[in-house]
Amino acid sequence: MKSPQSLDLLLSIDRLCGVPIRTQLEEQLRRAIREQRLHAGLQLPATRTLASEIGLSRGLVVEAYEQLLAEGWIVSRRGSGTRVASRGVGIAVAEVSSQQQGDLPRFDFRPGSPDPQRFPWSAWTAAVRRGMAAAGADAFRYPDHRGAPVLRASLARYLARARGCDSAAERLLVCGGFTQAMDLICRVLKERGARCIAIEDPAFESLGTNINAHGLVTHRIAVDDHGMQVDRLRATAADAVVVTPAHQYPTGAVLSPLRRERLLAWARERGALIIEDDYDAEFRYDGPACGALQGQASEHTLYVGTASKTLTPALRLGWILAPAPMATALAALKRRVDRGASAIEQIALAGFIEHGDLDRHLRRMRVIYRRRRDAVLAALARHRFEHRVHGISAGLHLMIELSRDVDEFELVRQAQLQSVRLFAGRGFWSQPQAAPPALVLGYGAIELEDIDEGIARLACIVREGVPAVAALRA
Amino acid sequence: MKSPQSLDLLLSIDRLCGVPIRTQLEEQLRRAIREQRLHAGLQLPATRTLASEIGLSRGLVVEAYEQLLAEGWIVSRRGSGTRVASRGVGIAVAEVSSQQQGDLPRFDFRPGSPDPQRFPWSAWTAAVRRGMAAAGADAFRYPDHRGAPVLRASLARYLARARGCDSAAERLLVCGGFTQAMDLICRVLKERGARCIAIEDPAFESLGTNINAHGLVTHRIAVDDHGMQVDRLRATAADAVVVTPAHQYPTGAVLSPLRRERLLAWARERGALIIEDDYDAEFRYDGPACGALQGQASEHTLYVGTASKTLTPALRLGWILAPAPMATALAALKRRVDRGASAIEQIALAGFIEHGDLDRHLRRMRVIYRRRRDAVLAALARHRFEHRVHGISAGLHLMIELSRDVDEFELVRQAQLQSVRLFAGRGFWSQPQAAPPALVLGYGAIELEDIDEGIARLACIVREGVPAVAALRA
Repeated sequence: MKSPQSLDLLLSIDRLCGVPIRTQLEEQLRRAIREQRLHAGLQLPATRTLASEIGLSRGLVVEAYEQLLAEGWIVSRRGSGTRVASRGVGIAVAEVSSQQQGDLPRFDFRPGSPDPQRFPWSAWTAAVRRGMAAAGADAFRYPDHRGAPVLRASLARYLARARGCDSAAERLLVCGGFTQAMDLICRVLKERGARCIAIEDPAFESLGTNINAHGLVTHRIAVDDHGMQVDRLRATAADAVVVTPAHQYPTGAVLSPLRRERLLAWARERGALIIEDDYDAEFRYDGPACGALQGQASEHTLYVGTASKTLTPALRLGWILAPAPMATALAALKRRVDRGASAIEQIALAGFIEHGDLDRHLRRMRVIYRRRRDAVLAALARHRFEHRVHGISAGLHLMIELSRDVDEFELVRQAQLQSVRLFAGRGFWSQPQAAPPALVLGYGAIELEDIDEGIARLACIVREGVPAVAALRA
Repeated sequence: MKSPQSLDLLLSIDRLCGVPIRTQLEEQLRRAIREQRLHAGLQLPATRTLASEIGLSRGLVVEAYEQLLAEGWIVSRRGSGTRVASRGVGIAVAEVSSQQQGDLPRFDFRPGSPDPQRFPWSAWTAAVRRGMAAAGADAFRYPDHRGAPVLRASLARYLARARGCDSAAERLLVCGGFTQAMDLICRVLKERGARCIAIEDPAFESLGTNINAHGLVTHRIAVDDHGMQVDRLRATAADAVVVTPAHQYPTGAVLSPLRRERLLAWARERGALIIEDDYDAEFRYDGPACGALQGQASEHTLYVGTASKTLTPALRLGWILAPAPMATALAALKRRVDRGASAIEQIALAGFIEHGDLDRHLRRMRVIYRRRRDAVLAALARHRFEHRVHGISAGLHLMIELSRDVDEFELVRQAQLQSVRLFAGRGFWSQPQAAPPALVLGYGAIELEDIDEGIARLACIVREGVPAVAALRA
């Protein structure tokens, strides 16, 4: 077995996989730092040394280091070389890290979480009691690895009604959230000979690296105000595409009806699969409701939904609605992988849906989140943010486009010093340096009365100007 | 992408992997039937056709078909060829299938489950209430993917105290039971260049096939009355070994102190890992307590425990205690795979342990299970089973060795007709035809007052004789 004692063992550059080499190098270094395989304070090899070790041009390594420096993953000081930054810096880039939750910020605008203060605990425990009384001792046997039958039946009805899905309990698999859904899907696709998966650009930061970890190539498809530019799929060899049609992450764009049609046409012609990440569609404030793509092409769509935004990510419950052959293969893999999800919480969720508790909770939360969104927009106006704001009509976050000369990573770092936490947009793009500077700001976890003060602090930092990052050309 | 339209696509025989070709063929056919990729009633190709399609000798295919016929996976009728048996037959061989639980047997001696009637529900819900009151809203954020810190701390103390482990919260990873533990471990070992994993012979039926699914070779190491014959490891190229030292599954043998020493010596010399499956060690009735191997060699052991036998498999909670570098790698993978387990039940389990509820529950259940075991032994004597009984000193099952002329699969089938469910022993061996006929009989889920009648029905079938299986030589 190989031991990861020298840095080069951590890096494996594949010149044939279609991903730009610099991107591969950056992503692998980011992952190694995030996973603490490269620990805080570790001195990185000089660019010249690393370039020769892994057989790349020095220019590529310099660019990758500059990028990681800009993102805060590494630090560079005259005389002491380049080192891995101390923990908690890289984090602002793109992920909520559970490891860092000890120091909750005063003004928490991190996207991706619903309000932890408003989990409907008493309705939930009532659902647990009712469900377990009905299930009896059978609830304590090995659970059905495909998901509790009562939950699959409830979800099938819910998805048909609330999301316009073409659903059936037999084609539903309960899993541990979107992350596990993608892990299972990638494993089945890989087994079936798939080689390439297209994803949006920008996208959820770990999506691409997680897919690549299965030995699958990712192609990035640019997003504009009408969502993914689906016509670009034809120039790829993608066997499947991951898309967030209802509310693109993180730009918030809604996939236009014309593009929906074209995406479905591509999937039909190619025999490809659409992986629909329907992560926060339940929260729509303005404009018409936006049904799931799956309802239009159930034979070609793997629909993925979760309880992570509607209820809480702490439950780790999600579901895949798949065409029949994929549903069978995914269920077989789920059995091999973990034999299914916890039965008690599945039974509770089924009753929670059937009893109308989920609808009640969503109605209440829609009002609360909408007020917060309006407060964010009002505060941005009051504190003279004259930037374009994207994706305000739905979900739990919005994106603020900054002017080209702003260093957003430095801005995020400065904000953190003021106890304001939010994400820099660039971390979501495949080519962060070419991406438009932006802030991704969530309002799922911040109280209404804290919003104005948080935005005021942010405005103050923007007005005072953010120093440019020193170049690394040594 | 390939489609599994013809049978040969489902089979992939690897002549270099060290697993006998007939075993590979049998295991792949069993899996395909179990996963319903080969559905009930499907006609299998003639032995001659299949042999030529996959390039094997016809004799090998005939032997594989005979074996599957004997195990009830397939049926053969003059004139209509060989077909996949209807559902519910293969099941008696080795697994509790959640799909088949609709028809619970009257006398349920299936091994592997604790009593579903005696889950300590009120103590559990009290632990949920206490834990959630203490955790507050933080419990509803994204959980720590390594496991809730309170649970890892509780488990570290519990494992040191109850199992003699060299434990530390930082080296613990909470996962979804033994199945997920093995999936994570295999992925990390494979990434690190491991090629071969030794497992016991006999072993939990899906263990070998699940490991093989990762592209890892398995070597089977014979078990006798003193547990795994560890000296045989030296003749293999195993990078790791899976062992059940406290109560071998399914024979119930305890690994002798001398073999423990030799196993640890082998691991140290080879730089190999011991994967310790400590699945039911909490239930010991006679003889000295048997501490975990991990306590003697924490640098070389991946200890895996679960709540599946002590509480209920419905919780899907397990844990891996690993050497530090493996713990880091496993945690990174767990994050990529599903971002951790449900927080609420982890917090509840932590409180359940800390509050002494687990100890109380185990004390109570030990008395109940011990009485049931004694009742099984008494019933076997009363109904004149003059066979050797193995593994009675611990756990939730025992194994009855039958005489060579008994067809145990037929016996299990006949018993099922009498509403008595138990497992045939042969399904656990790599070479079922060479294995000693045996019955594996669990007493975790059967009430004390039902035991005598269940054993009486079994005795009746044994006394009346079981017809031999017709040979398939066509």
